[in-house]
Amino acid sequence: MTKLYGNAIVGQSGGPTAAINATLSGVVRGCFEAEQIKTVYGAINGVEGILNETICDLGSQLDSEDKLRLLEQTPAAALGSCRKKLPKYSDEPEIYNKLLEVFKKYDIRYFFYIGGNDSMDTVAKLSEFVNGAGYEMRVMGVPKTIDNDLVGTDHTPGFGSAAKYIATVMQEILLDAAVYTTKAVTIVEFMGRDAGWLTAAAALTRKHGISPDMIYLPEVDFDFEKFYEDIEKAFETHPNVVVAVSEGARTADGKYVGESAQSGAVDVFGHKYLSGTGKALELAVKNKFGCKVRSVEINLPQRCAAHLRSKTDIDESVTVGRGAVRAAVNGETGKMACFIRESGEEYRCSVGLCDISSVANAIRKVPREMINERANNVTDACVDYIYPLICGEADCVFDQGLPAIFKVKK
Amino acid sequence: MTKLYGNAIVGQSGGPTAAINATLSGVVRGCFEAEQIKTVYGAINGVEGILNETICDLGSQLDSEDKLRLLEQTPAAALGSCRKKLPKYSDEPEIYNKLLEVFKKYDIRYFFYIGGNDSMDTVAKLSEFVNGAGYEMRVMGVPKTIDNDLVGTDHTPGFGSAAKYIATVMQEILLDAAVYTTKAVTIVEFMGRDAGWLTAAAALTRKHGISPDMIYLPEVDFDFEKFYEDIEKAFETHPNVVVAVSEGARTADGKYVGESAQSGAVDVFGHKYLSGTGKALELAVKNKFGCKVRSVEINLPQRCAAHLRSKTDIDESVTVGRGAVRAAVNGETGKMACFIRESGEEYRCSVGLCDISSVANAIRKVPREMINERANNVTDACVDYIYPLICGEADCVFDQGLPAIFKVKK
Repeated sequence: MTKLYGNAIVGQSGGPTAAINATLSGVVRGCFEAEQIKTVYGAINGVEGILNETICDLGSQLDSEDKLRLLEQTPAAALGSCRKKLPKYSDEPEIYNKLLEVFKKYDIRYFFYIGGNDSMDTVAKLSEFVNGAGYEMRVMGVPKTIDNDLVGTDHTPGFGSAAKYIATVMQEILLDAAVYTTKAVTIVEFMGRDAGWLTAAAALTRKHGISPDMIYLPEVDFDFEKFYEDIEKAFETHPNVVVAVSEGARTADGKYVGESAQSGAVDVFGHKYLSGTGKALELAVKNKFGCKVRSVEINLPQRCAAHLRSKTDIDESVTVGRGAVRAAVNGETGKMACFIRESGEEYRCSVGLCDISSVANAIRKVPREMINERANNVTDACVDYIYPLICGEADCVFDQGLPAIFKVKK
Repeated sequence: MTKLYGNAIVGQSGGPTAAINATLSGVVRGCFEAEQIKTVYGAINGVEGILNETICDLGSQLDSEDKLRLLEQTPAAALGSCRKKLPKYSDEPEIYNKLLEVFKKYDIRYFFYIGGNDSMDTVAKLSEFVNGAGYEMRVMGVPKTIDNDLVGTDHTPGFGSAAKYIATVMQEILLDAAVYTTKAVTIVEFMGRDAGWLTAAAALTRKHGISPDMIYLPEVDFDFEKFYEDIEKAFETHPNVVVAVSEGARTADGKYVGESAQSGAVDVFGHKYLSGTGKALELAVKNKFGCKVRSVEINLPQRCAAHLRSKTDIDESVTVGRGAVRAAVNGETGKMACFIRESGEEYRCSVGLCDISSVANAIRKVPREMINERANNVTDACVDYIYPLICGEADCVFDQGLPAIFKVKK
């Protein structure tokens, strides 16, 4: 195989995580290490940045270990992000031609796109297009999503830090909820439209002998009557009942639990815009039991709380970015870098590659066997799966009382 | 003055904070250091625990520096809390007689109560009662509240950690909100029914050159028309507008901004139960501008996020607990320990005492001169006041991926 010399461009897409910039750092580190790659460009706001030619020389801004480290602890996509999904080539060929023009102008031979499943669809389309156009460019997807719902990888970069934050907040709320003797229900809502991985992470407090009374995931139909029974049963042993629930919990008719309280709006991908699962359950409990109830929606902090990151997750996030570059310089294209968990007692994980077409637009849910029979909690097997991913604390440098941040000059 | 020998009891009351157990540790440390005090009891669930005789030997559970440290990093009241407010003696003398009976039974000569202004009311009443009853017992209040709204002290233990958490989360949300180019408004709601100190802490991100566009506190009437003008003006320079608002923001007619969305329920002190200030503004902006809007209610984590605590706050919280014990063994009673900030460039703070009757049921608000003229942000003087309180990071020991916690055997 002949070596492919040229420049690289990297973009970030989809919702931010606390680890997406660690992966960005990993890609930059990988490019620095590859003799084939000269300049590392950053696409501002993902593919939008390429279309608009808002591109920065990212490598020159990250010319020290300190700067790379600072980038790794900065939450949210440092290059900016987008939710743009590429159309079919046949529908809008001019978009693809514009992209090709920019690639040629900057001699881009390596394209790295860090994102979730919607972003992998972009990677798949782009890979197919440049192949067909006879332009030699290696296109690699690098996963990220707090949701942990990508197929083809044992887990996703960003999930471990989100899970660590969720379990920590859950522990804090459990302690907070336990201080009064008054009968009360606390409902805590976590993100996860279709997959319950984030909500399942609330079970990790078991490691300290405490846990929410019930955990409801979107994978199994939510049943209000069983929910009321579960609460009644919990009240038999203690006055403070705590419930963890996914925003995506649905009843058997397919309706979201929070549907009554929502606007019916959809996002640009046609996903239903959700709000108020916790709020809807709060009202339901208040009506049924008449006791004190409150709901807490953890909301954005679970995806951007970079002040508390899993060391395992951050180390792996850097490694997977670097691994994607290595694979590309070795001739791979049209793939997504992924994690392969080795079997055995001790947790070990390596970076592999998977076919991108199997990843795009698919969703990996919590398997039924990781959920208990009554579907109101997760099993120990689920906790065992998540646990290694939250281990260790990534260093966080503070500056003037707040976590220090890196700002990309755009 | 003759030395008063006997036992001590300590209780926690009101809402939890991330520092209330550091103060508890300080009280225990102070008792250990005082030759006059033999046993340190803990009242489970505040005065309720004394009335029910649910009392533990707390000192013997904290017989090592490691355990005291672990207690200091444990969020929420380790002894449990209560919202019980003592009645007037003339209304229910039997309650006071029951308390006296327990004090005598356990030879309690020192009573330390860690709480907010409602708790200081209990301290004031109890102090007056034992005086009148001729039972020699020193009664000391030790402040805590994330709200920073107690009079008689420069600031309150617990506020610094809450402020550090709020500024950190604000920074994370600002970065998260900035990743897309779509026009959008993000509204972040912080606690604070009458005082805007917590919401004001969102301005500390200025230290890193970023900040919410507007900050609205309950101290000044909220004006929807001015709010819309503020948003329009912010949109002139950037697409991502971020607003920080207190749950207690009120319009000129005295109604809470979130009033339309709330139940009208009141808590046991007769305070209005609030919900939905952010949600109400979200709907208002959506109707007015038709753009993408979301609201984030930071909720419980701001008072129990012990994984991110200010070292200054935690050190001071221990010191004020210890100071209260020292003052009591030196003959003081019916006082609240407080912080006195020394003047000068460098931040220095010492523990003093203030008269409890001036503290109970009073509220210290953000002074008008710390709010800008248009009342849509705070001044640099406000940032300068809060800044020293968030400085430094308290150590946090982790165990199995989560912050380690101390559990009191009750």
